[in-house]
Amino acid sequence: MDAGERPRAAVVVTGSELLTGTISDRNGPWLSRELVGLGFEVAHVLVVGDRPEDLADALAFGADAGATLVVTSGGLGPTADDLTAEVVASFAGAPLELDEGMRAHIADILAGWASRTGFGGPALEEANRKQAMVPRGAVALAPVGTAPGLVVSRPGGPLVVVLPGPPRELQGMWPAVLDTEPVRELLAGVPSPGARSLRFFGLPESEIAATLRDIGAGRDLSAVEVTTCLRRSELEVDLRPRPEASGIADELHAQLAARHAKHLVSVDGTSTDELLARVLTARGVTVATGESCTGGMLAARLVDLAGSSAYVAGGVVAYSNEAKTALLDVPTELVVEHGAVSPEVARALADGARTRFGADIGIGITGVAGPGGGTEAKPVGYVCFCVTTSDGTLLARDRVLPGSRADIRERATDTGMHLLLRAAGGLPPR
Amino acid sequence: MDAGERPRAAVVVTGSELLTGTISDRNGPWLSRELVGLGFEVAHVLVVGDRPEDLADALAFGADAGATLVVTSGGLGPTADDLTAEVVASFAGAPLELDEGMRAHIADILAGWASRTGFGGPALEEANRKQAMVPRGAVALAPVGTAPGLVVSRPGGPLVVVLPGPPRELQGMWPAVLDTEPVRELLAGVPSPGARSLRFFGLPESEIAATLRDIGAGRDLSAVEVTTCLRRSELEVDLRPRPEASGIADELHAQLAARHAKHLVSVDGTSTDELLARVLTARGVTVATGESCTGGMLAARLVDLAGSSAYVAGGVVAYSNEAKTALLDVPTELVVEHGAVSPEVARALADGARTRFGADIGIGITGVAGPGGGTEAKPVGYVCFCVTTSDGTLLARDRVLPGSRADIRERATDTGMHLLLRAAGGLPPR
Repeated sequence: MDAGERPRAAVVVTGSELLTGTISDRNGPWLSRELVGLGFEVAHVLVVGDRPEDLADALAFGADAGATLVVTSGGLGPTADDLTAEVVASFAGAPLELDEGMRAHIADILAGWASRTGFGGPALEEANRKQAMVPRGAVALAPVGTAPGLVVSRPGGPLVVVLPGPPRELQGMWPAVLDTEPVRELLAGVPSPGARSLRFFGLPESEIAATLRDIGAGRDLSAVEVTTCLRRSELEVDLRPRPEASGIADELHAQLAARHAKHLVSVDGTSTDELLARVLTARGVTVATGESCTGGMLAARLVDLAGSSAYVAGGVVAYSNEAKTALLDVPTELVVEHGAVSPEVARALADGARTRFGADIGIGITGVAGPGGGTEAKPVGYVCFCVTTSDGTLLARDRVLPGSRADIRERATDTGMHLLLRAAGGLPPR
Repeated sequence: MDAGERPRAAVVVTGSELLTGTISDRNGPWLSRELVGLGFEVAHVLVVGDRPEDLADALAFGADAGATLVVTSGGLGPTADDLTAEVVASFAGAPLELDEGMRAHIADILAGWASRTGFGGPALEEANRKQAMVPRGAVALAPVGTAPGLVVSRPGGPLVVVLPGPPRELQGMWPAVLDTEPVRELLAGVPSPGARSLRFFGLPESEIAATLRDIGAGRDLSAVEVTTCLRRSELEVDLRPRPEASGIADELHAQLAARHAKHLVSVDGTSTDELLARVLTARGVTVATGESCTGGMLAARLVDLAGSSAYVAGGVVAYSNEAKTALLDVPTELVVEHGAVSPEVARALADGARTRFGADIGIGITGVAGPGGGTEAKPVGYVCFCVTTSDGTLLARDRVLPGSRADIRERATDTGMHLLLRAAGGLPPR
């Protein structure tokens, strides 16, 4: 399946520290999502070091790939190895010129910083001047930190958008980018993305592939690009039609939802986390957690969203048997009889959490996260879940989850969130 | 600073789903770290979609950048859009041939899978045959999942290593890659990386930059590439000398450690998390947590490492005032008098957690994570920390942490881990 009729965009990320594997680039994925959302096909994301010749080659590679838009991040700082503006100016064939208004604007920002830190002097003035150099004819964008952004038109294309490296600054500057004349002109020629999304829980990718083969046997689906992505145990399915294939995408969307209704989380891509926050807020009910192997990950996930204080009553990480008994009233006999990892103890953890925190919904999770501690009956990855509510609902599951210790704990947290959503009545009706 | 004398490697990651921003590539950073560890300079990481012409261009771009080694990930599956082997064969000028031994090997793997899932038949046989096609003269690597890897020599270079996309399979195959004849031959000509690392807590990057300028004024440091990376509030500083500059790197390493001793975490790059696990295990002491704004993130972080059951007693997420009192014995008067976010309540949370779980060390964290709830006296980002121990140690801090709700909670967790390490005596002596 290809979406070759969409205009292409390319992303160039600079930063030698990104090529040592110490940190992961966050700007490439963020920009990709934005560009796809605008209707582009992203040709590539290219991470290069802070070397001018590599950056120049990267810009040329974007042009060769047919990109009408190249977005760069990084290399706009005040030091000598921050060379993006210079390289882009040369790529566009435009000389760098001092933008006096921008110089004054940055000087103001730096003056505030200098007075707070005590730094200043000629080094700062030089940095100021360097950061205010703008390729002739380019649009300069006001800094979010201290570095201005640039929109640089190259005769014959592509249009180059130059953004700072810190994700907060890059993201903060993006609305201003979209509001510039050259970008608005370019976007006028980009067809609407018309993307549709679906989200499923516990459905393997191969099932979607099989359904697509089945439907595709009867009709041509090549005008709809389908990508699947498994994240937090949820399969997100995105349909991106070519401009003329909107109707086919709608039908496909409906058929995928209907055939996999049992696993459906949402028909618009909304995640379990968001749905759970919505339903708990709307119903005005509260949740408490009793966690063993996940060790607080479920509580932390619940608290991730702003406004969660309205529905998170609290939680206990009861890693030891003593803690399970002392803080969540799990009867010692229950642990002795069934083991700390058992459906019975999961239920006692749920009840204990609910009662101790005075919550409407309680969830208990206990399992063998590994790498040690597995037995034949309860291998590494065996996890018991239970959700109980004050109105008597009981939802219990046990599973052997695959993967490493980290995988098992993450998947257990995902499953916990999903069970909470189910118990709270936030899943779509079948 | 440049490291131009090191041989270059390039990474090509394929996967259309990586270009929609839905998920982030994990293979690029992982491979970068491995390649840098072997002594290469990584020229770039290039993410392209599953389009044969883009992949062909990406391989050529790696060769043009002077890479002697190109590592690809992805596109080795059984379906029609998995085209990496074909494109690499064409790039190397070697025809694809059926590797009968590999076909039989994959058939065995698939037979096991088919018997478990009930799938099978001609579609499976075709997939089997496709995945066993190997460019003439290439080394085929046994699958970790079902896809074999390849090491393909191209006349005049570069050497191309072809790996599957799933990170678990890619990482699992890496030792076999390093053990192949062509890779061993290439590595024989790569100078040892000789990298040195340092780790600091709470030190801004600009301080390292200033120190480098200062030392650099007196002697030439250009033979040592210095990269800094801020992660989990820790600044990792990596020194990578050119082959002949080992002595300069040693001196620089010692000077950076001495000048910033107050913020030093380790002189070998070991992280706070690892150091904390070591010191708690060695001393045989246990930790309990009382968390408000971090909502379980600190407990989850402590439980991240295998073996943590030896030193994590448990934790309480006491988001509401009632929970603070009911589960961690925080006196209601204390909350009324000083507010839920106060050094006094942080201390009571630490004491309560320590006592309730019978632990040796207790930590309390309470703060305003935002976006709402800030006041002039206690703005968004204001967080109080306290660590108390059964032998009477008390460590208290309060800070206004910058950033979004997620940033504040992460930084608070980082700070909590650092204070635990300090209280446990795991920091290097000054």
